[in-house]
Amino acid sequence: MAITYREAGVDIDAGEDLVERIKPLAKRTRIPEVVADIGGFAGLCQIPTDIEEPLLVSGTDGVGTKLLVAIATGRHDTIGQDLVAMCANDIATCGARPLFFLDYFACGKLDVGIAERVIAGIADGCSLAGCALIGGETAEMPGMYKSGEYDLAGFCVGVVGRRQLLGPDKVRVGDRLLGITSSGLHSNGYSLARRVFETQMGLGFDAHVPELGTTVGEALLVPTRIYPRLVSQLKTAIGDGLHALCHVTGGGVTDNLPRVLPPGTRAQVRMPELPVLFRVIQAGGPVELPELLRTFNCGLGLIAAVDASRADAAVTALSAAGEQVVDLGEIVADTSGNEPCVEYV
Amino acid sequence: MAITYREAGVDIDAGEDLVERIKPLAKRTRIPEVVADIGGFAGLCQIPTDIEEPLLVSGTDGVGTKLLVAIATGRHDTIGQDLVAMCANDIATCGARPLFFLDYFACGKLDVGIAERVIAGIADGCSLAGCALIGGETAEMPGMYKSGEYDLAGFCVGVVGRRQLLGPDKVRVGDRLLGITSSGLHSNGYSLARRVFETQMGLGFDAHVPELGTTVGEALLVPTRIYPRLVSQLKTAIGDGLHALCHVTGGGVTDNLPRVLPPGTRAQVRMPELPVLFRVIQAGGPVELPELLRTFNCGLGLIAAVDASRADAAVTALSAAGEQVVDLGEIVADTSGNEPCVEYV
Repeated sequence: MAITYREAGVDIDAGEDLVERIKPLAKRTRIPEVVADIGGFAGLCQIPTDIEEPLLVSGTDGVGTKLLVAIATGRHDTIGQDLVAMCANDIATCGARPLFFLDYFACGKLDVGIAERVIAGIADGCSLAGCALIGGETAEMPGMYKSGEYDLAGFCVGVVGRRQLLGPDKVRVGDRLLGITSSGLHSNGYSLARRVFETQMGLGFDAHVPELGTTVGEALLVPTRIYPRLVSQLKTAIGDGLHALCHVTGGGVTDNLPRVLPPGTRAQVRMPELPVLFRVIQAGGPVELPELLRTFNCGLGLIAAVDASRADAAVTALSAAGEQVVDLGEIVADTSGNEPCVEYV
Repeated sequence: MAITYREAGVDIDAGEDLVERIKPLAKRTRIPEVVADIGGFAGLCQIPTDIEEPLLVSGTDGVGTKLLVAIATGRHDTIGQDLVAMCANDIATCGARPLFFLDYFACGKLDVGIAERVIAGIADGCSLAGCALIGGETAEMPGMYKSGEYDLAGFCVGVVGRRQLLGPDKVRVGDRLLGITSSGLHSNGYSLARRVFETQMGLGFDAHVPELGTTVGEALLVPTRIYPRLVSQLKTAIGDGLHALCHVTGGGVTDNLPRVLPPGTRAQVRMPELPVLFRVIQAGGPVELPELLRTFNCGLGLIAAVDASRADAAVTALSAAGEQVVDLGEIVADTSGNEPCVEYV
């Protein structure tokens, strides 16, 4: 008897059903620059006309094994926000405005309901980032993923005027470092965090942890903050007093902050008290502090390097936006000849 | 004793080693518009200045379970070309020039050697497509992928002048449909093809198939053709005589060609003889012809809808570029009120 693609494990009709369910979600995220709706071979977007010498800024990321927490707990509605955050925050660190986002969703067998919840979370994230969900790919790959598991990748493109580009070129000795809080682990360090809770502490995702006031799963699934709108407010407040932004991802403050430091400098950082989730992990491993600082954001999602003369104005603006800002320290000269690094003081 | 991220299965040093190995590969693909090298938080690219009313065109895709063939046979050097092809060809169907590409590589345990071979193939693909490999993400996710397995997603952005945008709006009754050959299955239908060879025919990837003159694995791994340079030659030859391009991917000619048809039309298509690989699959399943046409490209990787008056010039230009072009048929009026479809004649 003749065989079909569906019998081989790929259900094109389910894929098309999902596309129909995604369309209204994507439509909610439209921005004026978007030209075509999802459905063609490719997404179309204009370049904003109010930007001098526009540069395209692009980034891709996943959410690591935070996915396994979402899958194990059956909570699929916020992992999409994490995905957008990881990409859009990277874009924002260049000073760019995120324009559009595309997602890749891969699974062994497509569950349209779960995929829709994941992608609804992506659309929510796009709204928070101010960018349009302009396309995506849903891949059903029999034999590749375990039953009920899926992977996610995100791609984001933004735009910035060449002279507004932030980064190490603009950072100077004397710049203040302002820390902006994270909401939790964001989307990095989950392999270690899962190991600590599951193996070292013997706690399942549904175990209630008194210090946290939540279950392990709830604490681990708190969505990653999305910073582009906050960055935009900061730029409005201090203009070119904003020199660089560090998105604290895998590698923590230790490995990420040096990426915005020019040669001949180092960052002197006084870390604020660790939020309780990080203290629980630190004690539960135990995980030594240097490893903690090189693996987790430790409470800081974003670090701004600002001109010292504008630091007060930056703090005022961020506070007005509801942020608890931490003055972490400053950029100092370093004549050691070593690569720029973080000195914890 | 204190535990570390590495003990939890994530080796940041291996990841950094890989980044160093990727840098020269990416550098080979640079185009003048690229501003920053890989390594910052995001990739930077200028917008070409010679394009009036530029639109950004973006697409994302994976390579489906062709990956499992690459993994099972240990041949990791061309799957990257497939990934670029799937994305860059979609961009080219809009008439856009691919500008830059980003990849997502996810695995359970990072094997730097394999990842480097995969990404070298991605860089090769970018060179063939004329776009720059501007960034990427390597995700090591313990517990998520089986040992030795990995997934890939790609993301491509291109640019086209608004008036040069190709698509159904430009297609007219009387347009000729020109078929451009595929190199094999490209990157779609592998779940069915694997089922046919493995289960129905009982042939492993290393089995030699006399009709094919190769092993099953070799036949299945032939890299996907990358069409943007050919599209560019066709545009140069017939200008606005080129109305639309259909990238024949999942869904085959049956489901993809209608995506470039305007309402009130249908495509009358006379398929050329099936290349031998598709005949082997057809007989080996057996797979009925309508299912074959809805699952595989059946020998046609790209279909151009061209103004009838320029069809000869198009064929001449494509032939001069070494292509075997097939005149498949034409666009006809359809007053049925149904959605545009393909009529095989």
